[in-house]
Amino acid sequence: MSIKKEENGSMRLRWPIEDIVAFAKRYAITHGLLCLIPDNLDQATIVPFSLYPSPYSYSHFKFIWSIQTAYNRLYNRISLDDEILEKALSPVIPLDDFVERLWKLHRNCKRRQSIQLDIYRNDYMLDTKVDKMRQIEFNTISSAFAGLTGIVADLHKAILHYGIENCHVRELKLDEKYEKSSTIDLILPNEALKKSAEAMIKAFELYNNENACILFIIVPNERNVCDQNALIDEIQKLKPNIHFHLKTFEQLTNELLYDEKTFNIYLKSSYDEIAIVYYRAGYIPDHYINEKCWLIREYIEQSRAIKCPTIRSQLAGCKIVQAYLTNENIIEKYINNKNLSKNIRSTFASMFAFDNNQTREKYINLLRQNPNGYVLKPNREGGGNNKYDDEILKLIENKENHLNSYIAMEKILPPKCTTCLIKPNGKHLLHVECINEIGIYGTMVTNVDTNEEYINDVIGYLVRTKTTDTNEGGVATGYSVLDCLDVSQNNNELSKIFSQEL
Amino acid sequence: MSIKKEENGSMRLRWPIEDIVAFAKRYAITHGLLCLIPDNLDQATIVPFSLYPSPYSYSHFKFIWSIQTAYNRLYNRISLDDEILEKALSPVIPLDDFVERLWKLHRNCKRRQSIQLDIYRNDYMLDTKVDKMRQIEFNTISSAFAGLTGIVADLHKAILHYGIENCHVRELKLDEKYEKSSTIDLILPNEALKKSAEAMIKAFELYNNENACILFIIVPNERNVCDQNALIDEIQKLKPNIHFHLKTFEQLTNELLYDEKTFNIYLKSSYDEIAIVYYRAGYIPDHYINEKCWLIREYIEQSRAIKCPTIRSQLAGCKIVQAYLTNENIIEKYINNKNLSKNIRSTFASMFAFDNNQTREKYINLLRQNPNGYVLKPNREGGGNNKYDDEILKLIENKENHLNSYIAMEKILPPKCTTCLIKPNGKHLLHVECINEIGIYGTMVTNVDTNEEYINDVIGYLVRTKTTDTNEGGVATGYSVLDCLDVSQNNNELSKIFSQEL
Repeated sequence: MSIKKEENGSMRLRWPIEDIVAFAKRYAITHGLLCLIPDNLDQATIVPFSLYPSPYSYSHFKFIWSIQTAYNRLYNRISLDDEILEKALSPVIPLDDFVERLWKLHRNCKRRQSIQLDIYRNDYMLDTKVDKMRQIEFNTISSAFAGLTGIVADLHKAILHYGIENCHVRELKLDEKYEKSSTIDLILPNEALKKSAEAMIKAFELYNNENACILFIIVPNERNVCDQNALIDEIQKLKPNIHFHLKTFEQLTNELLYDEKTFNIYLKSSYDEIAIVYYRAGYIPDHYINEKCWLIREYIEQSRAIKCPTIRSQLAGCKIVQAYLTNENIIEKYINNKNLSKNIRSTFASMFAFDNNQTREKYINLLRQNPNGYVLKPNREGGGNNKYDDEILKLIENKENHLNSYIAMEKILPPKCTTCLIKPNGKHLLHVECINEIGIYGTMVTNVDTNEEYINDVIGYLVRTKTTDTNEGGVATGYSVLDCLDVSQNNNELSKIFSQEL
Repeated sequence: MSIKKEENGSMRLRWPIEDIVAFAKRYAITHGLLCLIPDNLDQATIVPFSLYPSPYSYSHFKFIWSIQTAYNRLYNRISLDDEILEKALSPVIPLDDFVERLWKLHRNCKRRQSIQLDIYRNDYMLDTKVDKMRQIEFNTISSAFAGLTGIVADLHKAILHYGIENCHVRELKLDEKYEKSSTIDLILPNEALKKSAEAMIKAFELYNNENACILFIIVPNERNVCDQNALIDEIQKLKPNIHFHLKTFEQLTNELLYDEKTFNIYLKSSYDEIAIVYYRAGYIPDHYINEKCWLIREYIEQSRAIKCPTIRSQLAGCKIVQAYLTNENIIEKYINNKNLSKNIRSTFASMFAFDNNQTREKYINLLRQNPNGYVLKPNREGGGNNKYDDEILKLIENKENHLNSYIAMEKILPPKCTTCLIKPNGKHLLHVECINEIGIYGTMVTNVDTNEEYINDVIGYLVRTKTTDTNEGGVATGYSVLDCLDVSQNNNELSKIFSQEL
């Protein structure tokens, strides 16, 4: 018997596809790419992910990266501008108890902390109609997945390294000159986790009590614990002496102490003073299960603690504010640089609300004529409740007065790619047609009284990929999977190599 | 309201115990202290662990550490001594098909690789009857948990750091002078994972084909994947260009190529030449589901690949060999240093087999008179089938001829400690009486023709803790939990602090 190994330079799978899938799952489980199983907090399952990075346009990615610090500043300034916030929110306040309550809370609280900490995530899709990146939404509260997105990149690197013969992976830095290469795949590096931790630590230092702690407010039976714990670990790695606590709003009703003289807040069990309140809960009404929970939010808001985010910053993330910003001369008020404001404006999809009697009929007609050209989005976080196509027509015919609860957004037509989606319980989707949504993370630590920017940074990215046959998004809801990007010149190669296997 | 924090130097819990348990579980899930759930390989659950390190005697630990390299050499030499192996195994060969088959396979295979790689784990308990460490067993195949034991130490450090006020943890190095301290806890560091990887890499380099790969032989539906993947990751970190494959015996029946001219073995899919075969399967008959699987084992054994372990090394780990070594002047043949051989001998519990007609009746009488003083252990890996107390008497009365399948070992009476055991699905055991079993990992890379020792090292340890009301062991079987050690002077403090909470 004579055994010969083919020796040519072209890429090909080294393992059969089922071994690659098995390896990928073992990697995911070993490296904490996990979420808990509902109803059993001692068991975890893999967070859905793609088997290899999706091809993407380097220039478009670089573009949204380049405008993020201006976007950070824009949203920071909007959150501080009560006049604009009120104007933008006013049509929604009478319709939406939750927004109304947040708004009133904000108006009743006196600011006692000039340091503001924000961790943003700005979500985009590439619109092939105009070959431009279009903003989907701007998240100002609980910007998730910074702790997991880096694991997916590492997973992809391991798969390409082990699973594919003659595959060389290069990590491209955004500030490096892009050298075109036909043989090397480029995956962008991701510092979302590390720099989120650094922003928190900077804010902690500005609070100026090294014995104080960081409070994570979480939902009961939180499933996305690996994502959150990664942030805790990263803080611990950089600054081991910062203590932290994880509490639900309901737990805090028994455990939070509010000192009306100093405006400090403490935790009863340890008497730890709270320097930073980091919200991974509080963005939907269900998180406040009773009035006491609302009282906790109020105590925190009017305390000296640094809030991530403040209520005003949370409100700035409402979709109605996003729609309001598309009006002329709004963003130009905050962004002095014409080029930057033009670039930011270029990411605005056409959006409209139905609160203005002068324009309402015009917009309804636009929807009637072209219902497939728009998406109706509720003015809420969470996803999963958008209206499309016939649903839009039905809403107009039967419940026209409900339109005010929605924002209409021009439908984005992102480019399609073919990939393999790995979901738990053996529900793989091999070689399916998909689209990508890109989130850019940004951090800000500012003194809102002096306008000093201690940190204004673009720190990393999130890629979520879903099949083209689903309208809905969301990794937690099972529609999307986590992914990363291949921006090399021949970035359709990987898809071809994996397809050969079938 | 005035809020004051008590400021004294004594240790106390910073979090309520339920928060500490919740934190510990989140940490375990995030850091891969996990095993798969039976029947769902996409879901994982926490590997049982203790909430804080168990108190232990530093001098006893240091003693077993100090003799491990001599132990490594002893077992390495025994594995190479066919005469001794045959003498020791001869009573079992007629009784045990599995041992017989391994023995015959070994005798029929010609050695074509002079490099031998061994990863051992030597398990002990402290016997309070004599205040000495006593060997429980010496593992030569599939020495598990090197990948997880370090995570437990990190978990304990995190719990002590975050969860306990005024708690300072110091990591003691075994070669450092031990400075007694009443305020600092000492936890021994663990390099079991890193140095296992280093031994594999050294063997790989000695095989001398950088394009070859490492083959992990695993069981179907392997649950302990995080432990195994940790080793792969560690190898990858140290030597990224080594490729590896994971296969079951059954998969190999289709995929292994054996070249009868060169005695090389390959994998069909990639034509990767196999430099090292690392067995995480093959230690019980059930792993060989058909004759083809046995043929695979034979091909590998007679190939040029470096086996971890060889069949001869696997056979040296049989309990009957362990019993045989307690006979006079056996170990002295391999260990020239009188002090070392005396020290090794001091770890031998009284053991006997029933194969010798001259002594059989005497030993049966010993058991009859004092059944509580002995344990009967089957001559097999795996655990869970020992006989105790009345079971021993029943066996003697009803099935005396079965005795030959067992080794009798004097019962060890380890010291008791109080700790908190965290098991999945909410089955915590808080403040229960427990005993500890300590495993010391050793690695060897040798040239068995020249006796050159490239590596002979003691690399780390495993601590398994179980309640005193269970006779059986095994983490995978749910009896034991992973643990680590506190060897500080006042090492009962932690137990007191955690008890105060109740």
